[in-house]
Parts: sequence; C-alpha cells; structure tokens
Amino acid sequence: MTITTRTALDSNPAASPEALTALAKCIDACLRCLQTCCNCADSCLHEEHPEQMRFCIRTDLDCADICAATVQVLSRASRPNLETVRALLETCRIACHYCSLECLKHSQVHDHCRICAEACQACEVACAALLRQTPLDQEIH
Amino acid sequence: MTITTRTALDSNPAASPEALTALAKCIDACLRCLQTCCNCADSCLHEEHPEQMRFCIRTDLDCADICAATVQVLSRASRPNLETVRALLETCRIACHYCSLECLKHSQVHDHCRICAEACQACEVACAALLRQTPLDQEIH
Amino acid sequence: MTITTRTALDSNPAASPEALTALAKCIDACLRCLQTCCNCADSCLHEEHPEQMRFCIRTDLDCADICAATVQVLSRASRPNLETVRALLETCRIACHYCSLECLKHSQVHDHCRICAEACQACEVACAALLRQTPLDQEIH
Amino acid sequence: MTITTRTALDSNPAASPEALTALAKCIDACLRCLQTCCNCADSCLHEEHPEQMRFCIRTDLDCADICAATVQVLSRASRPNLETVRALLETCRIACHYCSLECLKHSQVHDHCRICAEACQACEVACAALLRQTPLDQEIH
Repeated sequence: MTITTRTALDSNPAASPEALTALAKCIDACLRCLQTCCNCADSCLHEEHPEQMRFCIRTDLDCADICAATVQVLSRASRPNLETVRALLETCRIACHYCSLECLKHSQVHDHCRICAEACQACEVACAALLRQTPLDQEIH
Repeated sequence: MTITTRTALDSNPAASPEALTALAKCIDACLRCLQTCCNCADSCLHEEHPEQMRFCIRTDLDCADICAATVQVLSRASRPNLETVRALLETCRIACHYCSLECLKHSQVHDHCRICAEACQACEVACAALLRQTPLDQEIH
Repeated sequence: MTITTRTALDSNPAASPEALTALAKCIDACLRCLQTCCNCADSCLHEEHPEQMRFCIRTDLDCADICAATVQVLSRASRPNLETVRALLETCRIACHYCSLECLKHSQVHDHCRICAEACQACEVACAALLRQTPLDQEIH
Repeated sequence: MTITTRTALDSNPAASPEALTALAKCIDACLRCLQTCCNCADSCLHEEHPEQMRFCIRTDLDCADICAATVQVLSRASRPNLETVRALLETCRIACHYCSLECLKHSQVHDHCRICAEACQACEVACAALLRQTPLDQEIH
C-alpha cells in the first residue's frame, strides 16, 4: 500500500477526525510548494540575467522556509495551540500569494516560474481552506 | 573581532539601515529561542512523567520550527515582501507567547522550562518591537 | 497538468540530465519521510505510555530535520559541492536506517510506527540509489 | 541571568555531562553560521554582478540548511543515535569547509563573504572538535 499523508494522519491517536481531509491536502500542498520554491530559486539564479530575478529568488526562499515550518507544525496532528496554527496558516497563505504573483511575472519566459506559481497558488488555496476549518476558540489545556 | 548578527547585517549591500538594530535583536532572540525550545522539548520528554508534558513538548517543537523559519527570512536583510514578514513576525510572537505561558506552568519544577519561558518571552518582545518598526505599506517591485 | 518533482527539476536551466530520475525519487522519498516522521513523533507522544517511546520520538525528530535539509539541498538541482551532497545523502541514509529500525520495534502495536518505518526504509533506499549515481570527484568552480 | 546554550543544556535531565562544553560550543557556532550564511546568500544576490556569485550563493544556502538541522539535532542533548550524529557533524564540517573556501575567494571584495568565511571556519573547527569527543560505539536502546 502506498503511504499517503492521510494514512499517516489517520494513525495518530490524538488527531481529531474532523478536518483531516483539509489538513492532509494542506500538508501535501506545502510539501509540493517547498520543493518547487527551492528549485525555482536555484533555477532563477542560473538564468542568464540573475540580476533581474533577485526579488523572485528572495520570495522563493522565504516561501520555502515558511512552507517547511508549516509542514512540520501541521504534521503534528494532535490538538495544537490554535492561535499559533491560524497565524502560521495565514502567513503561509500570504507568502504563497506573493510568491505566485512574482513568479507569474516571469512564467511566460521561465518554465520553473510557471510551475512554481502554480504550486504556490495551490498551496495558497489549501491554506485558506484549512483556515476556514480551523476553529477560532482556544481549547483549555 | 567577534562576528555578531549586526556586523553581518551591516555587510549586506541591500539592507536599509533604519531598522537594523531591532532586526539584529530579533534574529538573536529567535536563535536563542530555537535552541532553548529544542532543548526543552527533549528535556520534557526525559522527565519522569512525559505524559504530563505532552502539550509543552508540542508547543516547544512548533515554536522551534517557527523561530527557525523566522531566522532565515529575517537574515535576508534586503527588502522583503513586507506583508509576509509582518505575518511571520506576528506568528512567531504568538508562538513564543503561548510557549512561554505553557513553560511557565512547569518552571518551578523544571529548570529547562524556566529557561525556555524566559527565552520565549524575550523573543516575543523582540518580534513585537520589530513589528512596530516594519512599515505596513508594500514597496513596489 | 499535475506538478511533480521531476517536472520541476526538468525546468532548472542548470540541472544535468543524468541523475534526474534518481534525484526526483530521492526528493520525493525525503518529503514523504519528513511528513511521516513528524507525525510519528507526535503520535508516539500521545500514546498511553510515552515514556516507552522516548527514543522513537527522538529518532523521528532527528530524521525529520535531516530529511528537511536534504530536500532543500537536493532541490537545488544545479551542480552542488559534491562532497557536501554525498555526506548529506549518507547522513540521511543512516538517519532513515536507524529510525526505521526503531519504528519497526513498535510497528505491530502502533500503526504510525509501521507507516513511518516503511517511509524511512523507502528513503534509505532512495538515498543509497542516488549516492551510487553521485560522482566522487569534485568539479572545479 | 543571561541564558546561554550551556545553561540550557545543563537543565536537560538526560544530558550526559562529558561533552557538554564541546556540544554547547558547536551549537553556538552552527547558530552563528546559519545566520551569516543566510545573510551572505542574500548579500551576494544583491551585489552588482550576481552571475559571478552563483556558486557562493548556492553553497551558502546549503550550509545554512545543514547548520539549521545540526542545531536542532544537537540541541536534543539526550543520548542520540551516535552514528546519525557523527554523520551529521561530518556533513556540517564538510559544508562549512567548502563554504568558507568559496567565501574566501570573495572576501577581499565583499565584507559579507569575509564574515561568512570566518563563521564557517569556526563552525568547521567546532564540528571537528565535537566529533573527536563523540564515541564511535552505539549504545543499546
């Protein structure tokens, strides 16, 4: 059987079953976005005119680091501090939003930017969807 | 000469000199918090009753991952996407706030929790200070 | 079209086409292993007797952090420092090997350990395969 | 009292006191190196001719990611899998070695490269020192 994010989450004794579908989708989108952003930054750097890609590289690197943190936090499927998770999801959504906007500017010239913009958009949507399912009120611990 | 975060930032050709003091302070606080949170999670796990430290461990791990991402993003001292940086600083501030609250509950019994709470509080303050100096409006790129 | 690690790597202007299949496979195995290790650590922590899972949690966390670094380094498909990449692949292979051994001990009782052991084994194999295709000699830069 | 890496490690109930001095020194060197490498990559990118700094940027980014993983693993001061730690320390040592060599090439022109080379060298030395104190034989768990 192929291991998926969902099967892993289902095995967590502390995971609440409600939002697991949106959670798995968001983790997978972050994993994909992390990979394409690292690749896009490296690709931009090796284009003929890297001086034109400075902001794209920087945005890629920020988005990759934020996606990596988001993957790690979300993969702890036990009840987290909800305010922290909401703020992180919102940060990841914003980072993906601006990274996709920047990549879109170059997407007709550079295929890695087109691919990265697409992965960022998917991640932005997945973060927003999970945010809508993440309750505002904090559990008492 | 000892290398400091400030001397490193000063050498960046794209850094704007305005907020460098608050920036260096925030990076250093995140580095310290990253280290104490990793240590506190491992220490809690090895206490006699780790089942009582579950939420503290989880909060430590989340805080560590978020601090690591914040260090990396902030250490790129060139002009970033300001909305991303603001959201990340706010996330880091929140993660530190709740991690310090959780650690404080155990700080009279466990020295690692006392140390971690202190480092988290310092990081919370440093993030808030840098947020106050980070402009709201986005530069056009 | 679905974005895959391979399509992202193919878009990198500096990627050498030789080892791209093994490279993409290794990145995907690391991404999967990162996710299952984070989940397994959190799951172990929430089992009835976390004091019996200490070493498993610790090994999971180490493996996750090493996989995350490996994903980021490998996703830069341009010619890297080969000694660094070889050492990192070997480290990731070793971390996955011992994490899978530890998880296997608990895999009949805890499903998350069974899933994590499987993901670690796949990542160990993928790192070894990529190592065999990574030349020993260093390019001159 | 100022929190240091050493005071944090001393509070860990599972830390073995033998190598704590070398451990604290290595963690601090990795934290410093992580920060200077992130800064150097961003600085190189914003120099007048980033196309001449491609390999330096790439090496900086790899070194930063490897240092971040090393900080996280080493900050778990409880008895780790020693083979994993030895391999990771060796990887970090190698990454720092080559990053310092690359930065040295530009250190007379770019101050951030001079600073980064120095931090990398210090980290290389600290990893080698800790390696010498890390036993080869694996504890039975």
